[in-house]
Amino acid sequence: MAAKIIDGNAIAKEMRQEIGAEVERLNKEHGITPGLATVLVGERPASQMYVRMKQRACEKIGIRSFGYSLPEGSTQEEVEGLIRELSANPEIHGILVQLPLPRHLDEERVLGSVALEKDVDGFHPINIGRLAMKGREPLFVPCTPYGCMVLLEKAGAQIEGAEAVVLGRSNIVGLPVSMLLLHANATVTICHSRSKDLPSICRRADILVAAVGRPEMVKGDWVKPGAYVIDVGSNKVEDPTAEKGYRWVGDVAFDEVKEVAGAITPSPGGVGPMTITMLLKNTLTAAQRSLSG
Amino acid sequence: MAAKIIDGNAIAKEMRQEIGAEVERLNKEHGITPGLATVLVGERPASQMYVRMKQRACEKIGIRSFGYSLPEGSTQEEVEGLIRELSANPEIHGILVQLPLPRHLDEERVLGSVALEKDVDGFHPINIGRLAMKGREPLFVPCTPYGCMVLLEKAGAQIEGAEAVVLGRSNIVGLPVSMLLLHANATVTICHSRSKDLPSICRRADILVAAVGRPEMVKGDWVKPGAYVIDVGSNKVEDPTAEKGYRWVGDVAFDEVKEVAGAITPSPGGVGPMTITMLLKNTLTAAQRSLSG
Repeated sequence: MAAKIIDGNAIAKEMRQEIGAEVERLNKEHGITPGLATVLVGERPASQMYVRMKQRACEKIGIRSFGYSLPEGSTQEEVEGLIRELSANPEIHGILVQLPLPRHLDEERVLGSVALEKDVDGFHPINIGRLAMKGREPLFVPCTPYGCMVLLEKAGAQIEGAEAVVLGRSNIVGLPVSMLLLHANATVTICHSRSKDLPSICRRADILVAAVGRPEMVKGDWVKPGAYVIDVGSNKVEDPTAEKGYRWVGDVAFDEVKEVAGAITPSPGGVGPMTITMLLKNTLTAAQRSLSG
Repeated sequence: MAAKIIDGNAIAKEMRQEIGAEVERLNKEHGITPGLATVLVGERPASQMYVRMKQRACEKIGIRSFGYSLPEGSTQEEVEGLIRELSANPEIHGILVQLPLPRHLDEERVLGSVALEKDVDGFHPINIGRLAMKGREPLFVPCTPYGCMVLLEKAGAQIEGAEAVVLGRSNIVGLPVSMLLLHANATVTICHSRSKDLPSICRRADILVAAVGRPEMVKGDWVKPGAYVIDVGSNKVEDPTAEKGYRWVGDVAFDEVKEVAGAITPSPGGVGPMTITMLLKNTLTAAQRSLSG
């Protein structure tokens, strides 16, 4: 029996409508327009594209977006100085520093200079520490892991007591999603490139999250029948039959795995649209909190 | 074949001698005596005992110990004020806040007021965040998890690529030891009271760390033959045959498990003596770093 397809586009669309309605209400009732500042250092084309996508998504639902671009060669002090200004600006409720930063900058210090209550990306060292600890709530959950959790919930996955396997241990996805699954009372296994016999580890999973950046690595026989499979990967692969000569695939061999899994996200169209949606939600939350501040 | 017994007392003794020799050298060559401040709020007898044990262990190897006791009813400001003073005192290289704190105090804020370079317990929110992240080194590793890792290394465990199972997800042991094992390239499974079928999860482990506080919970048939078993538990159980009417046992049923495991720590006499040893080591490290500060 083929798996249920978890439609990230549809879920994201519905959530964005709800967020948009709440933005409008906030504006009407309290005269507040949520504002997101994006900080881009340097000119990586992929980063420029991500920032533009975030800005457009904001504008579409009534969140004001403030774009800041600093030259590649900016000093630590210049970047932190800008972020401190934005942290003090009452029109800005959320601050997003587009990663990766140029290598000469100290990423941890830059992220640590964001006001905690505006850290809508959830990457402030204090928020990361809280995310890792039991009983300490981060002010904001990082967007991609947060999106994975929402997809699992919307798809009806039973997380408590489940065996969850996370493939990949990156700071922006693998580690935080592992912590979220653990706090939701799953038994969590974190595996990675040094793990032995990945197929049999993955086959234990009631919930499998793939976040390694290896095209179609997870095969049909890596998956337990009925499992929930969340594919965070987004990999560009050559494809002479495609119009542009390439196409995007996830970390999961979708066609094979959908015949085994109970539910699966496609990629594209699964986790991707959720990431920006959760950023919008975090920005709304920051603006709402500013009311009672 | 019976397991090799990992003798925490012997390993701790040897390490304390090495640390003591280094303390002496630091004193002779640089005129510096490492200093550890202990901060105790309230009068819990167990906490008083732990603090005394730490102080005595310091004095025995030439580390100066500064004991501070505040009354149970101290305010957040009073506790943080003391810690700020200690953070500024150049004779003090390490600050240990004995946990748990009285409930009316905000633990995270208290721990966050310790100067990062004196956080020898490794519980500053920034250090915890760094411990959880790949590629960000904490200034100090929390003492009990650090002790577990040293015991594994001294016993010759192969960590990279091993399946490690951590039973328990506390902030002071389970979570940080999981992160340390992960950074050492083990495949790590974190399980807990909501996990299903603990015995079979534990049986996967090449390295099993038990830190749940349940007397002799891990039985012989929970353990893979040849596994390394680290028992963090220390539980007082009634025993009419014992002189005092009680005795201390670990989370592991030692007599059964030692017939199956490849190596095992006893409890008492395994992890316990290592915890204070790693505190001494962290304090020495803090003093050494102050030279180049």
